[in-house]
Amino acid sequence: MSVQADRPSGGARVAVIGLGSMGFGMATSLRRAGFDVAGFDVDRGAVERFATGGGRGAAVPAEAAHGVEAVVSVVVNAAQTEAVLFGPDGVAAAMPEGAVFISSATMDPEVARRLAGRLEETGRLYLDAPISGGAQRAAEGALTILASGSPQAFARARPMLDAMASKLYELGDAAGQGAAFKMINQLLAGVHIAAACEAISFAARQGLDLAKVYEVITASAGNSWMFENRVPHVLDGDYTPRSAVDIFVKDLGIIQDMARAAKFPVPVSAAALQMFLMTSAAGMGRDDDASVARLYAQVTGTKLPGGES
Amino acid sequence: MSVQADRPSGGARVAVIGLGSMGFGMATSLRRAGFDVAGFDVDRGAVERFATGGGRGAAVPAEAAHGVEAVVSVVVNAAQTEAVLFGPDGVAAAMPEGAVFISSATMDPEVARRLAGRLEETGRLYLDAPISGGAQRAAEGALTILASGSPQAFARARPMLDAMASKLYELGDAAGQGAAFKMINQLLAGVHIAAACEAISFAARQGLDLAKVYEVITASAGNSWMFENRVPHVLDGDYTPRSAVDIFVKDLGIIQDMARAAKFPVPVSAAALQMFLMTSAAGMGRDDDASVARLYAQVTGTKLPGGES
Repeated sequence: MSVQADRPSGGARVAVIGLGSMGFGMATSLRRAGFDVAGFDVDRGAVERFATGGGRGAAVPAEAAHGVEAVVSVVVNAAQTEAVLFGPDGVAAAMPEGAVFISSATMDPEVARRLAGRLEETGRLYLDAPISGGAQRAAEGALTILASGSPQAFARARPMLDAMASKLYELGDAAGQGAAFKMINQLLAGVHIAAACEAISFAARQGLDLAKVYEVITASAGNSWMFENRVPHVLDGDYTPRSAVDIFVKDLGIIQDMARAAKFPVPVSAAALQMFLMTSAAGMGRDDDASVARLYAQVTGTKLPGGES
Repeated sequence: MSVQADRPSGGARVAVIGLGSMGFGMATSLRRAGFDVAGFDVDRGAVERFATGGGRGAAVPAEAAHGVEAVVSVVVNAAQTEAVLFGPDGVAAAMPEGAVFISSATMDPEVARRLAGRLEETGRLYLDAPISGGAQRAAEGALTILASGSPQAFARARPMLDAMASKLYELGDAAGQGAAFKMINQLLAGVHIAAACEAISFAARQGLDLAKVYEVITASAGNSWMFENRVPHVLDGDYTPRSAVDIFVKDLGIIQDMARAAKFPVPVSAAALQMFLMTSAAGMGRDDDASVARLYAQVTGTKLPGGES
């Protein structure tokens, strides 16, 4: 690609920690933009695939972080992020002073502020940068990033953000703001998935033509991004995980923690969380999150496409 | 308009029962298409406005129904629909045999089937035809209609449907199917309003820039038709009713009745209903349904635009 010919990055070093479907795509986008990318994952197979494709594999996070401009952390949650930073062979001590840690995990804003403060005390920068968009957009460098942090962190991170994102929201000058916006999105997304599953399985129970329900709802005031995106999985009876049930067990759980700490009742998302928990408890935690519809169907003996009940 | 010049209706008589913001617009669309429209409402002022605009006013529903091709019923619920049909001065006995009753109220599909059966025994036709779209689209003849009924009912109603709707879904050959599709839409719409209000007030509690939240969410996976449509009312602090809280007290209540009768748990919409009920109980039942956000704000002492708390 012409972008690669330009090498706007000048071959600067970047580490990507976490080479799952999102991290692998983000690392690929960074390499395409000309960065010299070292990748680490707890899954050695993922590191080997990355090295086979021309990236540099690292044995531990600290090794990947030597001499970098930035570490991009694409792990699942706050605990993993903390381990990447401050655990054994963590990146915090290995990063050059003034380098920036770009944190994409969805987490409680309070935790993001705490991690940022601890890293900044050591002379490194922290950018709170949750991501939105799927694996395909990660690979295309077309993610949406909800970022907040100091002007210095933004300045240092900008070339990498430009390589990974087609849409960058600058949401404040301190860590935590990006995380807070992401959590509001997750509250809505989780409720909308649960509502879509409740509605489509209730429609099935009434004997309605589900393809017609999809056609009518997506053209009506009852539509949501999630209804439009997830209900086709139900219509196809295909629960291969694009995003797993346990992701929303986690994210709606964070919402409950935040809300309880703030003494703020959130009964609608609390009800949605219970449905993700029931679906996970029924053994579908690693299946696609549209599996919440299967839970409704199983409990009520309703037939869905591809199902046995 | 050229449509009027064509007068495809040949000046056939139609009655419109219920001249609220939706019914008035639908009556206007029918007149524009060349129908001879008689209108009735329990509010005499509405009938006078309709007559002043050139329509024929009627003193009772039966009077409006004399000699009609169709009666279009635009009342609020099943009980009012039953009264329009079979109550004192109701239309059922006054309609010519073979004329069609076009019923737009949102109701339990079981009730729609019962009303249709009772009317059809008298030799009149029944079209189950819930509507979607606001007052403006009603006035423009651009509603979405979710219709089901016998082929005879569709054939008789088609010229009137064409005058009122830009999108007509034909959802089955018996009353009840249209109502069932509408209820699935209302389940989702109600949950999405409650979720939008929970999310935007929780964002306010966290001190986020609400206009920015709106910008980010409407471009993200957490978006819904209702979030996009209702949150601006919260941002403007304007709770003038476009659609009232008590509409969803009613419609999510019907969902609960249907689900209980079917032994089908619907915990997410049950939680949403409680929020509409709390908002109505707090004195906001006739205010805009985005008032659910004000309830969250009042309970938690969170400041929203235009609010005092």
